[in-house]
Amino acid sequence: MSGFTHIDETGAARMVDVSAKDVSARTATATGKVLLSAEAVALLRSGEVPKGDALGTARIAGIMGAKRTPDLIPLCHPIALHGVKVDLAVTDDGVEITARVKTADRTGVEMEALTAVSVAALALIDMVKAVDPAAVITDVRVEEKTGGKTGVWTRP
Amino acid sequence: MSGFTHIDETGAARMVDVSAKDVSARTATATGKVLLSAEAVALLRSGEVPKGDALGTARIAGIMGAKRTPDLIPLCHPIALHGVKVDLAVTDDGVEITARVKTADRTGVEMEALTAVSVAALALIDMVKAVDPAAVITDVRVEEKTGGKTGVWTRP
Amino acid sequence: MSGFTHIDETGAARMVDVSAKDVSARTATATGKVLLSAEAVALLRSGEVPKGDALGTARIAGIMGAKRTPDLIPLCHPIALHGVKVDLAVTDDGVEITARVKTADRTGVEMEALTAVSVAALALIDMVKAVDPAAVITDVRVEEKTGGKTGVWTRP
Amino acid sequence: MSGFTHIDETGAARMVDVSAKDVSARTATATGKVLLSAEAVALLRSGEVPKGDALGTARIAGIMGAKRTPDLIPLCHPIALHGVKVDLAVTDDGVEITARVKTADRTGVEMEALTAVSVAALALIDMVKAVDPAAVITDVRVEEKTGGKTGVWTRP
Amino acid sequence: MSGFTHIDETGAARMVDVSAKDVSARTATATGKVLLSAEAVALLRSGEVPKGDALGTARIAGIMGAKRTPDLIPLCHPIALHGVKVDLAVTDDGVEITARVKTADRTGVEMEALTAVSVAALALIDMVKAVDPAAVITDVRVEEKTGGKTGVWTRP
Amino acid sequence: MSGFTHIDETGAARMVDVSAKDVSARTATATGKVLLSAEAVALLRSGEVPKGDALGTARIAGIMGAKRTPDLIPLCHPIALHGVKVDLAVTDDGVEITARVKTADRTGVEMEALTAVSVAALALIDMVKAVDPAAVITDVRVEEKTGGKTGVWTRP
Repeated sequence: MSGFTHIDETGAARMVDVSAKDVSARTATATGKVLLSAEAVALLRSGEVPKGDALGTARIAGIMGAKRTPDLIPLCHPIALHGVKVDLAVTDDGVEITARVKTADRTGVEMEALTAVSVAALALIDMVKAVDPAAVITDVRVEEKTGGKTGVWTRP
Repeated sequence: MSGFTHIDETGAARMVDVSAKDVSARTATATGKVLLSAEAVALLRSGEVPKGDALGTARIAGIMGAKRTPDLIPLCHPIALHGVKVDLAVTDDGVEITARVKTADRTGVEMEALTAVSVAALALIDMVKAVDPAAVITDVRVEEKTGGKTGVWTRP
Repeated sequence: MSGFTHIDETGAARMVDVSAKDVSARTATATGKVLLSAEAVALLRSGEVPKGDALGTARIAGIMGAKRTPDLIPLCHPIALHGVKVDLAVTDDGVEITARVKTADRTGVEMEALTAVSVAALALIDMVKAVDPAAVITDVRVEEKTGGKTGVWTRP
Repeated sequence: MSGFTHIDETGAARMVDVSAKDVSARTATATGKVLLSAEAVALLRSGEVPKGDALGTARIAGIMGAKRTPDLIPLCHPIALHGVKVDLAVTDDGVEITARVKTADRTGVEMEALTAVSVAALALIDMVKAVDPAAVITDVRVEEKTGGKTGVWTRP
Repeated sequence: MSGFTHIDETGAARMVDVSAKDVSARTATATGKVLLSAEAVALLRSGEVPKGDALGTARIAGIMGAKRTPDLIPLCHPIALHGVKVDLAVTDDGVEITARVKTADRTGVEMEALTAVSVAALALIDMVKAVDPAAVITDVRVEEKTGGKTGVWTRP
Repeated sequence: MSGFTHIDETGAARMVDVSAKDVSARTATATGKVLLSAEAVALLRSGEVPKGDALGTARIAGIMGAKRTPDLIPLCHPIALHGVKVDLAVTDDGVEITARVKTADRTGVEMEALTAVSVAALALIDMVKAVDPAAVITDVRVEEKTGGKTGVWTRP
């Protein structure tokens, strides 16, 4: 492909210029699930995961993960984050994760919300993997996004 | 809850002691999918994603993500990584991601493989989100794990 | 404890939403001490610490530590830092550390000042620990804080 | 001072060569205190800190902080960590923090233990600072160190 | 030198206070070269570097490097980055690298542009070092800088 | 290009598997220069750089930069570093930088040495850029490499 040897505008990854975008209040909500065995769900419900408090650890990991988004995602802009909330709900077949992120800056925060969900999910698996090595992360997706030029976007 | 005020062994997260574990060759393979719109798939196939080469960027992000695992996952041990390979295959409904990680150290590397897949998936979404804001990460899971005391584990 | 299995508002750590707070000039000053042996103090005074220039290294570590605050403190907001100054004064029983941090953003910077002092203190101990393995960090605390809704706070 | 313009061996900070040191089992225990108001202690005991579970957050921060030691302390070697445990005990005047770190590598882990205590203390203050802006970190120190050429060191 | 033991204003490194500076649009362009063997140039031109796509990897590394500037350069302010573009052009004797960085903040972004060029150059060398262990990075420099109080600066 | 859609072995960047390589003592020495104005050289010699001790700050930055190599260079393996030394010598036309890195691990450390030189050079420029905005980094290259299967390599 020409993009790598000729280095023209097409095909060369770049962090797009957002300096003309407005600083405006923006939010994003993302969700995801970790599918777990019945045994792992029971241990989460009784608070007896051998490695320690799995849900609390995953929540903290998710919040810290949101802050690491520009370190992890090559073309994400480093932006201010004004609020991050990560909730985990134990269900019969695993854990549902919801992350809500707010900012007042020049780019949307859907990548931060998706990263928070993914890192919380990974941390949760790390806590229970001795009990359930077959855990699966699924349905990680943006549910809603507000602010910026495009306004409100809701998953169809 | 007693775990937080009395701080007994139960309930307090800790990085478990692996110093008695053998240094042995260990591998892990994890996979995952990013479900995309037909338009996004077409752009990936023609190499015309406006933000730049999406698959190459995701692959690099996945490899670098594997190295950041102990920074992201609170109780993961910092270990040597001796090889990381991230493959992305475009299919009709999205992209399939496979990560293979090798080490010769005291802990398994399934978290590194899962993190590589997740970060590659997040980076891919970042590249195409202007075209497909409804992308979904799904089926992120360990397929196989070798080495260490437990030997070979294959997803049932 | 219900906080971990039911995930209600109470008890779940979150990065609080500061988007409604004013962007205003804010400062914080923190101080701390490293108590050292007479031998270590003498080496600092003569500039003969075997591992190299201990005070200069600690000062740089403190400034860089201030910038790492949101990476280290789970619920700290990533914010702009407009000025960081770390001073170290050798006294007869050790080293006194002062950090002054300024910003014009939505949150106070006392955590950044405390982190600068702590990391400078840790780096100083690292430089002299071969000479004085019994060094102690003590009295790390905010002295003054200005700006924001609460205005000036001075240690009582 | 000559150290900066002539760059001789004296005075120039460097990461000392440890390649001749043995890989041996090593441990370090460090402790520290956060002095808090009666109100903050009461909230910790009842688990009602408004910002969320303060002790659990501080514990995770301390463990993750241990892993960041070579990023924070300029001349610390990046080494393997085989186990990290951070305990927090609420007392009448604050919180006592203990960190235990194990490795099997070429350098001692006292800096990792001290960093774990310091970061846990900083994170705890961040959780309660709205309630108690006058919190103080004190008595951060190594209690015991084992392994390596020097063997067991216990605080005199 | 007095700077280290007496800690006066002179000689003590500090992150200078920029809070009085204007938030204004600022850009910087930096360039640099990696001198390579004819064999390495040929492999880059044919896209057959054994380790993988060298130019794409270097470009991503450069962009991510720009974001790590305040982590790497002790006294650099952490600032917003609104756009980063890294171009690599293969010439007969190596690769020419250009980085363009934009922001709307209180400090110039020439260090970010220089860091992007340097990290891209290092990553390129890493990709070809098995083929050309004698590669050299040269002529890394700011070409132009706009915005802020000093306005436009062009290399004389 | 086929490499991106078909994901065969060719063209896909990967962290090569080094698990079969020997753990052996390895060293690398890299050098580089920062070309500066006569005014900047004079300030370095008299120790009167307004921003603080430039050479000491650059030295620390170089050592810390060596440790960040696997974070910066996408395909570099995270390895142990057993010794890092960065020297800066002021000459009539600038500063010469030498970095020596040692390890006992499975990969060479030339990238760590080159990164140490580059980051030290960038940090030095940051210290003097108000005085000399036209500084240039040049001749960054490996001088010697020992250990591993290839043994001693000296720049021809």
